[in-house]
This record gives sequence, structure tokens and C-alpha cells, in this order.
Amino acid sequence: MAPTVKRIGVLTAGGDCPGLNAVIRAVVKDACFNGLEVLGIEDGFLGLIEDRLRPLSQDHVSNILTQGGTILGSSNKANPLRFATGTNADGTPRIEDVSARVIATIQKHGLDCIVVIGGDGSMSIAHELTEKARSGGVELRFVGVPKTIDNDLMGTEITFGHATAVATATDALDKLHSTAASHHRVMVVEVMGRNAGWIALSAGLASGSDAILIPEIPFHLETVCDMVISRGRRGKRFSIICVAEGAAPVGEQQKIAKIDPTSPDPVRLGGIAEWLASAVEQETRIESRYVVLGHVQRGGTPVAQDRVLATSLGFRAMELLRDSRFGRMVAVQGGQLTDVAIDQVAGRQRKVPLDHPMLAAARAVYTTFGE
Amino acid sequence: MAPTVKRIGVLTAGGDCPGLNAVIRAVVKDACFNGLEVLGIEDGFLGLIEDRLRPLSQDHVSNILTQGGTILGSSNKANPLRFATGTNADGTPRIEDVSARVIATIQKHGLDCIVVIGGDGSMSIAHELTEKARSGGVELRFVGVPKTIDNDLMGTEITFGHATAVATATDALDKLHSTAASHHRVMVVEVMGRNAGWIALSAGLASGSDAILIPEIPFHLETVCDMVISRGRRGKRFSIICVAEGAAPVGEQQKIAKIDPTSPDPVRLGGIAEWLASAVEQETRIESRYVVLGHVQRGGTPVAQDRVLATSLGFRAMELLRDSRFGRMVAVQGGQLTDVAIDQVAGRQRKVPLDHPMLAAARAVYTTFGE
Amino acid sequence: MAPTVKRIGVLTAGGDCPGLNAVIRAVVKDACFNGLEVLGIEDGFLGLIEDRLRPLSQDHVSNILTQGGTILGSSNKANPLRFATGTNADGTPRIEDVSARVIATIQKHGLDCIVVIGGDGSMSIAHELTEKARSGGVELRFVGVPKTIDNDLMGTEITFGHATAVATATDALDKLHSTAASHHRVMVVEVMGRNAGWIALSAGLASGSDAILIPEIPFHLETVCDMVISRGRRGKRFSIICVAEGAAPVGEQQKIAKIDPTSPDPVRLGGIAEWLASAVEQETRIESRYVVLGHVQRGGTPVAQDRVLATSLGFRAMELLRDSRFGRMVAVQGGQLTDVAIDQVAGRQRKVPLDHPMLAAARAVYTTFGE
Amino acid sequence: MAPTVKRIGVLTAGGDCPGLNAVIRAVVKDACFNGLEVLGIEDGFLGLIEDRLRPLSQDHVSNILTQGGTILGSSNKANPLRFATGTNADGTPRIEDVSARVIATIQKHGLDCIVVIGGDGSMSIAHELTEKARSGGVELRFVGVPKTIDNDLMGTEITFGHATAVATATDALDKLHSTAASHHRVMVVEVMGRNAGWIALSAGLASGSDAILIPEIPFHLETVCDMVISRGRRGKRFSIICVAEGAAPVGEQQKIAKIDPTSPDPVRLGGIAEWLASAVEQETRIESRYVVLGHVQRGGTPVAQDRVLATSLGFRAMELLRDSRFGRMVAVQGGQLTDVAIDQVAGRQRKVPLDHPMLAAARAVYTTFGE
Repeated sequence: MAPTVKRIGVLTAGGDCPGLNAVIRAVVKDACFNGLEVLGIEDGFLGLIEDRLRPLSQDHVSNILTQGGTILGSSNKANPLRFATGTNADGTPRIEDVSARVIATIQKHGLDCIVVIGGDGSMSIAHELTEKARSGGVELRFVGVPKTIDNDLMGTEITFGHATAVATATDALDKLHSTAASHHRVMVVEVMGRNAGWIALSAGLASGSDAILIPEIPFHLETVCDMVISRGRRGKRFSIICVAEGAAPVGEQQKIAKIDPTSPDPVRLGGIAEWLASAVEQETRIESRYVVLGHVQRGGTPVAQDRVLATSLGFRAMELLRDSRFGRMVAVQGGQLTDVAIDQVAGRQRKVPLDHPMLAAARAVYTTFGE
Repeated sequence: MAPTVKRIGVLTAGGDCPGLNAVIRAVVKDACFNGLEVLGIEDGFLGLIEDRLRPLSQDHVSNILTQGGTILGSSNKANPLRFATGTNADGTPRIEDVSARVIATIQKHGLDCIVVIGGDGSMSIAHELTEKARSGGVELRFVGVPKTIDNDLMGTEITFGHATAVATATDALDKLHSTAASHHRVMVVEVMGRNAGWIALSAGLASGSDAILIPEIPFHLETVCDMVISRGRRGKRFSIICVAEGAAPVGEQQKIAKIDPTSPDPVRLGGIAEWLASAVEQETRIESRYVVLGHVQRGGTPVAQDRVLATSLGFRAMELLRDSRFGRMVAVQGGQLTDVAIDQVAGRQRKVPLDHPMLAAARAVYTTFGE
Repeated sequence: MAPTVKRIGVLTAGGDCPGLNAVIRAVVKDACFNGLEVLGIEDGFLGLIEDRLRPLSQDHVSNILTQGGTILGSSNKANPLRFATGTNADGTPRIEDVSARVIATIQKHGLDCIVVIGGDGSMSIAHELTEKARSGGVELRFVGVPKTIDNDLMGTEITFGHATAVATATDALDKLHSTAASHHRVMVVEVMGRNAGWIALSAGLASGSDAILIPEIPFHLETVCDMVISRGRRGKRFSIICVAEGAAPVGEQQKIAKIDPTSPDPVRLGGIAEWLASAVEQETRIESRYVVLGHVQRGGTPVAQDRVLATSLGFRAMELLRDSRFGRMVAVQGGQLTDVAIDQVAGRQRKVPLDHPMLAAARAVYTTFGE
Repeated sequence: MAPTVKRIGVLTAGGDCPGLNAVIRAVVKDACFNGLEVLGIEDGFLGLIEDRLRPLSQDHVSNILTQGGTILGSSNKANPLRFATGTNADGTPRIEDVSARVIATIQKHGLDCIVVIGGDGSMSIAHELTEKARSGGVELRFVGVPKTIDNDLMGTEITFGHATAVATATDALDKLHSTAASHHRVMVVEVMGRNAGWIALSAGLASGSDAILIPEIPFHLETVCDMVISRGRRGKRFSIICVAEGAAPVGEQQKIAKIDPTSPDPVRLGGIAEWLASAVEQETRIESRYVVLGHVQRGGTPVAQDRVLATSLGFRAMELLRDSRFGRMVAVQGGQLTDVAIDQVAGRQRKVPLDHPMLAAARAVYTTFGE
């Protein structure tokens, strides 16, 4: 017989994403309706390590549907299996496995299942924790809700928050269009997407960008400059280049984006937009400017589509949970809500396939990918 | 051997829809790139009847991607097979079949194919014209691009313009939320959807409406009032009701929405929102107000998603055309771009199925459909 | 010596207005900083009648700056001097003076002063209550913060909420512009403004409306139709008419806007936009549509300008209060913050002067006022 | 007797600014109505140097009211009195006075007056050209329309485009608020304002920023960090810092903002936001991120207020011109439209006065200026 779920936890992990609160609201409302207790876990997995949980009732999720951020807080760096607990004698961080603390917290509060709203890293943690606990004879139960503005999570076609990030990027590109046109400039706009170019592709296509540069397609600076120059010959004295932060010219990745490998949250030392604006100006002699949109893309009121998706995914996660289908992540495939095994998506990323219809559509309206 | 397409026409027919210009832009750019000539047909099928066409080049579609409306103009009432050519002796309109004029215009300009951007009515006209011409030994060739803000076209899961309409409706619902809460009121918001409740369902779910009333589910006034009253008991002294213009209480359709059957564009004599606000206030003694959003939903800059979809559909229509796959309408099925036979979608509408996941998700966050 | 103010109340009265929460936040934060206690009075003057007050601390005003509505609630019909306490034997409402209850509430809670955020009606109530109490030997102290989206309050050039209402109306007019142009229609848009045309004037000018009709200038239907027809002759087959709800044709006010005189909140029986669209269509034979924006104009996140103004006015009210300058309303004159006597603004409205520069600017870009 | 003006020119100079097209539209419409011919001068003063002008009719200004940018183009670096005409033998740019070319262009086209829409630099150029020409016995006539998103032009309280820039910055700050709160971060947002802090002040106040740093008030890093830490102690684990690009810590200007003095458009080598985020993180040990909004603030559809202001200023400039009041710039003073002598505003900037009411209001809601 299936285990009866009576008390659940919910946490939000990883980078910020519009729609997190909408998922939490759906989870709590569904739980209350079905007589389940819900504990909110603060700051992602950190709340499980540090035993910071609080009860969530309907009142707590009133009026949060339209709010960006997460009422539970999040944390980017709290992996219980490799947790920085202090400093070694030589000054390096001391990394320990504190999964026992997590298990103790879960058992102390009697959580029958935890809804993990997170990305591929969070799904990995959920999976590893489950394996670890099982080897010690303890059963941990998770259901996952996919979360990333980058839309690069394996197993699902679309993630909530992505549409809002695309809308924000498109709005900025729209604004820059008129300025570029008035001043006869090249405008380089860097959007998020370290590993995958979904935001750049959608926002670039939506805004009619003249070039879209994504991590999946190493670009030739020459091709980009040729586009700028040939537009000039046709009387179009400005160009818009939408570039994903992870894009790089053929063979030049290391020179441009020096990633600090020792940092858990790698920081670029100078970004691709800055480099590109400078390189294009030097090659074409046309004034070039750049803008890095940055964290603005992670915030704000979710667009309608993301609120609908987040609510639907939250509800679907509760269905999984009530059906005792643990270890699964809700997903969208073929335009339909479905679910996949967490261990199949953990730590894996979905890149833009080179035969994606959006690439063909973009080329049809004369957008170059710098090939 | 497939007929060679050298010169094409493009028209936009029916009600306004954000993204029309994005489709026209994709069609013209693709055509220019592939060496096809494009004639823009003015005001939908009326331009074919009255021989009003003009050449379209890349310059004409510059800077229109983000603009609402259509640079070609549209017309709601120009069906060449039943066209009002004047007035009979008894004052009634004289309705004639002027398809011969349409065929003459097409032949005069040597149009090898016409891209029809329109709804189910426009697809019907394209189909009927094709049949009519064929019976006279003339081959007319159309490819269709589905267009309706209502998202109720058969054969495709999603139409461009719908997301923008939902965004506009959601924005209005968000604004009314704070006012309703401050004044302890019931706020009834009427959105578009004469036959199908897609806009009401998405915008209602996105805005956290307390009731969503759609044509597919006749509602009980009592159920709606019970929701209002029971919210009041829980300290929530306001409620938001999102109602599709075509929704009606069980058994009361005729009384509320008196449609003038002689009008080609039926005008409501008093709408459902007005009736409902009055009825709810009378039953619950709670102050109720209504807003009819109306044509605002048809206008404005398309949201990013609609620009991407419209561009993709326009490009796909040109692929069909270049592959001589006439009589087909581009579509989205299973989340993928595809195409369907125009005669299979002509005049048919896609209603919200009663087992749609959005209904379940809405119920999970305590939204009533008035059942 | 000036009386020392130690405990104050704050209330929001009348129709909803974006920025109310920003004023409350400024009042509470300033009070806390200066060691004053604040009680929030619920639902405007009704809270004083029914003794519903609650303490407000900094935590209560956290995160409300950007929210529409008012956390305190409001009430349109709670005038303590003419309050409906029940029903007479003959079924008419029993109207009584309950100012004694208000005075008792104020004394019970030891409120040294009350910040009234309201319109001309609320200022009248504050003034009358002060007079009434004084005649009984009691000193009531109020400071006023002007509030109306209509911007028609005497003594101040600008009120918070107005810019947001204008932005909302302009956004709707922008959306309707493309639809009107695509369909060759006349589009009539009714905005708020029962007594004064400030919203219509600003939104009409901002949106490039072809006619702006305001209560201050009775219009000739013929002039409006002439504009529509002459635009048609110049190839502009659409027109946008922005009409204030209180506008009326010369000599026809009563026929169009039948106000129910027995209702404290008069309800139009059919509005000016509906009438006008019908009349213009009949006269010009050009398809005409109308939209009534309604309560949407009262809600939503305040625009930046309104947040700055509301915060500044709230702070200024606290300065008045701390300086014991009671019976004053904060105001803007000559572009500067200042204050005026409440009794000089009570119940008075500021209409658009016929020599206002915006009228001249509108005429310069070919907008007619229907004269 | 006053000279009769029959043919005028209009140009837009300097950085991009929302509302430029609205001014052009008002100028052209007013001119057409009054029977004046208008020539549009391309790319600011560069069009006068290079003799690039084109006639403007009503059709050219149709549908541009809501568009960002300028249909005439602009140029940042085209000062006819110090114009780079080529390169000297030693590789340095050859700077020449080409005002004779400008005068020749004006005389060739018979321009009786030129409407200069520009900032303090453009007003200087207009003034210098007038003087130069006069010394040669030629009378040049200009009227000015003040333009800067920074709002730092002397002689006028407000400039069009500023409200739109503030709205864009506030929107970004709103979005970042939720992300900062969810992740317990300090978020530093750099807005435009090299010499004056108007944008930072308005957007910071509108968004409830915890610190506002402006060029007028050199800040102490310690004060900023104290604010961050003391908020943490009150349970507010995030802070928002809105910083003008020209702000700098006390005594540290040179270290942070290394300006390249040889560049005509000085480029920062690392900006204040980057420095500040790093410094705050180091001092407080709280994760800090920064965003530089950049050129996004110059673009986009002008907000309603800016469209009204731009239209009013354009009309007013035409009144000046028709009244032969040359050498004047339209302005707003005391909330009223007026005008000032161009030579009194040329090259001068209006900084935020330290006793401005917005500073007091900001302090009242606990915002620090880092003093």
C-alpha cells in the first residue's frame, strides 16, 4: 500500500526566477484543501541543514501570485553533500557532507515528502540525498518542479520564469532599437544564458535583432561585422546584436571569458558584450555600445503565461505527491503536462538544437548567427 | 512537376489581432530572399473584390514587427461569396456572389498563391473560393496562417495574438484586484470570447480570479454568490469574477444576451458583466462593479511570445508555398509547427475541453467555474 | 505653547487611487522615526464611526510602496454627519448625524491628530467634524493629503494617482489606435472625469487623439463628425475620440446621462461613449466602436512620479502635524510643495481653465474639442 | 518690423531622449497649419555641416508620437566650431571651425529660423554660431527646446524624456527588489547622471531604495555599509543601492572613475557600481551584485507625461518663432511654460540642490545619501 502523506515540506533553491511564489501558492492551497500540513523550508537546502522551517497556511500565500522572488528565500551554494562548514588550517574552505543533518531535520519534523522547486543542480541534490539516505536505510521522498529562467533543463520543453525573462530582455531590446537607429550605432545586448541560448534566441527573434549569438554556435567576428557593414550599404546605419552571456567566437572562448575555476559561482572577468562591442567598433569603424541586462531578467512580476504554468506545475506536483509518485519531476512534453524521473534530469542541460524551427525562422528574417 | 510560384499575394482578414504585421514581415522578407514578388492586398478579401493591391518590398516591412494592427488593413464583412453589393427595392441589402471579381483580380495580377492570415471564417472563404474556381476550371491556391485572439481555431493549439490578449486582460485584472480589495467589492471583468473561454481561463488563472465563467460551462448564479459570501466569512471582503463575453447562466442565455440575428456583426443588447454585477449585488448585498475590456484586447504591441510565433508561422507558410503544398494552414500541434488542410478547419471552433489541465489547476487554487 | 502630538491616526477615504499606500508608508515611517504612535483607521471615516483601528508599525508598511489600493481599506459613503444608520418605517434610509461617535472614538484612543488622505468630500467632512466638535468644546485636529485620480481638487495643481490614471488611459488609447487604423473605424474611449476633464485632456494629448471631449467644453456633435469626415478625405480612415465621462453635447446633457438622483453614488444609465459612438456612426456612416475604461484607471502599481509625489506629500503632512499646523492640507502650487487651509478646498473642484496651455498644444496638433 | 518667417529648419542634437519625435511632430504640424515650410536637418548640426536636409510634411510625422528615438537622426560629436575634419600629420585629429559651411547651408536653403532640440552643449553651439555669424554680418536665428534625460539643464525645472528614464530605472529597481530580497543580497543599480543625480534621486525614492548616491553628495562607504548592516540586524537581509554614474566616495573620485581625457566621449574604465558592489561585499561580507542600466534609459516609448510635455514645448517653440522671439529656449518654471535666453543656459548644468524637498522626503523613509 502507498505511504500516506500527511505533512510535506516545500523549498525553493538556486537562482531567482519569476513564478516561484505562484508555485508555492499552488502547493499550499492544494495541500490545505486536501488536509495536508505544509512546512516552508527557508533558503533552499540551507533551511534543511540549519533546521529553519515554518508552517505555511493559506494566509501566507495570499497576494503572492503576482510577486517576483520567493517568500521562502533561496540559496545558491547550499549543497548538503559538499557544504562549506568552515575554514581549514591552510585557509581553504572546509567542505563536508552534512546530509545527516538534512535527514535529521526531515525526520524531526516528520516530513513525508518535500517539493523541490529548483534547477538541474537542485534535482541532483535531491537525487543524491535520496541515494545517500537509502544506503543508510532511510527513505527520503522528493517531487521536483523545474525552475530556470534559462529554459535549459532536460526533460521539459518549457520552464516557468523563462517567458518573463524573455519579455524583460525583449523590452530592453525594443528600447535600444530606437536609440541605435537615431545614433547610427551598433548596440550589443548581453542576455542571460551561460550554457544555452534560449533567452537570446527568443528575445532576439522577438525584437528583430540583426545578429543572435548563442553558446551552441561559436561565431565568427567577421560574419558579424560583415552583417553590420552590409546593412550600412543598404542604408541601415545601425545594427542590434543580441548575445547570450555564454556565447563566444570560434576558438576564442578562453581569451574572452576568463572563468575563475575555484569559485563556486564563477565570475566573468570582462564579458562577451564588452569584448564584442569593442571588436566590432574596431573592425567596422561604426560606433558600438553594449548593455549587460543582468539580474533584471530574474525579477519582476511574472508574465501571465508564467503564472499559469507555475500554478499548473505546482498543482501537478501535488498530484504526483498524492499519488505517491516520488522521485519524479513535473514537466511539459509535446505541449502536455507530464513527469520524468528526477535522476534522468539531474545535472543535465538542454541546449538549443541546431535544427530548431526558431533558428530557421530567424534566418528567414535575415538574422545571422555569426556562422 | 510542381507549379513554380513567382508572384504571391498576402492579405489579413477579420478582427484585429496583435502580430499580424509580424506575419506580413516574415512573408515579405522570406519572399524577397527567395526571389518572389509580393503584392499586399488591402483590407482583406475586399481588396480582391475591389482590385486594391500594392507591391510590398523589404522597406515596407521595416519597423513593423512591434506594431499592433495590420499595415494592409482588414475588413470584417467582406465575404466574396455573399457580398453586400447594394440595396434591394425593399430596403434589404442585396447579397451577391462576386467570386468572379476575385478570380479576375487574381488572374489580372498573376498571383500564383495567396497567403491568407485569418480566422475560421477566412479559411472558409479561401476554401469556398477554391472550390468555386475549380468548378469553373480555374485553380486558385491559398496557404493559411491561423489568426484569432480567442485561440479557438480548430487544428492548432495556439494562435498568435492570444498571448497578448491574455496579457492585456491579466494586466487589467491585476489593477482591479487592489481596488476591489480596498473597497470590499465584487468586481466583474468581461473579457473577449464569444464561443470559447480561452482568454477568460488563462487571464482568470493568471490573475487569481475567484470565479472564471466561460461559454463552455453554463454557470449557476447561486454558486457564484456562494463563493462571494463564503469568502466574506473567511475575512476576504472582495471577489474578482472573470467572465467571457459568451458565458451565460444555466438556462438563461437568451434573456441576458439578446443578439440581433439580422446583424452581420451581432451587437449585444446589454452584456453578461453588467447583468452579473447587478445580480450578484442583489443576491449578496455586496457592492459590485463591472468593467468590459472590449477592443483594448485586440490592440497593442504583441508580446514577445506572439512575435516569435507570428514570425515562425509566417516563415512556415512560405515553406508550404515554396513546396507547392497549397490548401494547407500552418498550425501548432504537440508543441510543434505543422500544417493541416484548410477545409478541415474552415468554420470550425475549438472550445475549452472540460478535462483541460488548466481547469483542474484553477480549481486547485479555489477558483469556481460556477458549476 | 503648541500641543504635543504623541499619537496619531491615519485614514484613507473615498474612491481608490494609486499611491495611497505610499502616503501611509511615509506617514508611518516618519512617525516611527519621530517617536509618534500611529493607529490605522479602517475603511475611512467608517472606522471612526465603528471604532475599528489598529496599530501600525514599520513592519506593516514594508513592501507596500508599489502596491495599488490601500492597506487600510476605504469607504465611499461614510459621512458621519449624514450617515445611514438604518431604514425608516417608510423604507427610506434613516440618515443621522453620528459625529458624537466619531468624537468618542478619537478621544477613547487619545488621537492627537488624524491624517486624512482624501478628496474634496473628505476634506469637507474633516472640516465639518472640526466645526461640530468645536461647538461642543472639543478640539479635533486634522491634516489633509489631497487624493483624486481626477486631479480636480482645489488648492493644488496636481494630485497623486492622476499620473497613473493618465498612464493607464494612454496605454489603452495606444492599443486602440492600431485597431482603429487597421479597421478604418472611429473608436470612442471613455475615461474618468465626471466634473473635470484633466484625465481626458492629458491622455488625449499624450495619445494623439483626434478629438478630446471634456465637461468644461460642451461639444457639437457636428464638429466631431466633421473632423471624422475631413480626416477621411485626407486618407485617414480612422479617428480616435477621447471623452471624459462627464462630457456632453451642447444642450443635451440630460438626455444622455440620466443620473439617478436618489443614489449617493450616482449610476449612469447608459454613458456618453455609447451614445457618441452610435451618433457618430449614424452621422458619418463610418463604423464606430466604444470602450469604457472604468475602474481599471483607479488601480495598479503607481507610476514612479506618483510614488515620489505621494511620499513627498505624506512626509509634508507629518511636518505640518509636527509643527502643530492643523486644519491644513498639503498641496503643490507653482511646482512647489506648500499647504492650504482645509476649509478653503472642502467641497470645491478645480476645472480645466479654458486658457490652459494644454488646450492650445492640443489644437496645434489638430485635436478638436468639439467647439 | 519683425522679420517674416517662411521657412524653418528643425534638428535634434546630442544623446537620445524619449519624446524627440513628439517635439518634431508638434513643430511640423504647427508649421503646416500656419503655412510655414519645414526642412528636417539630418543628424543634428552634422546635417548643417554636410548639407543634408529634407522637407518634412504632415505625413512624415504621422504615427511618430509614441516612438522613441528621432526620425531626423542625431550626432553627439558634431560641433561646427570645433569639428574633426581629418587627421594631422602626427596622427592627431585635425580640428577646424566649419561654421562657414553651416552658414552657407542655412543661406542656401533660405532657413529663416532653426528649432534646435538639444541639451546644454547644443544651446552653446547655437549661441556661438549666432555670435560668429553676427561678427560676419549675418543674422542666424535659433529657438531652443531643452532636451536631456538627466534633467540637469539650467533655466528649466523639467525636461522631456526625464520622466521616461525615471520610469525605466524604477521598473528595473522594482524587478531587482524581489531578487535581492529572495537571495539576501545587496543590489547596486547604476543609473545615468554624470553630473547631476536627478534620475537616481527620483528612481531611488520611487523604488524605495535604501541608499541613493548622487554626484552632488560625495558619500562615505562606511555610511553605506552601516546601513546594510543595521538593516540586517532588523531582519532585512537585503539592501538596494541606487547610484548615479557620476557619484563617488569622498575623496576617491579619481581612483574609481578613470576618465580618458583624450576621448571626446569619455569612457569609464570600470564604473562606480562595479566598484561599490565589490567594496560593500568586502566590508559587510554580504553577497553583493550590480547592474548598469545604461542606454536602455535613453530609449523606448515616452511615458504619457513626456509626450504631453514634448508636444507643449514644441508648440511653444513655434509660438516664440512666430513672434520673432529668437535666441530663446522654451522652459518650465514655477510649473508654467515660459522661455529663457539661450546664452543664459548654454553650457550650464542644474544640479540637485541640497535642500531639495525630495531629499528630505527620502530621508523620512530612511534612505541614506551616504553622508
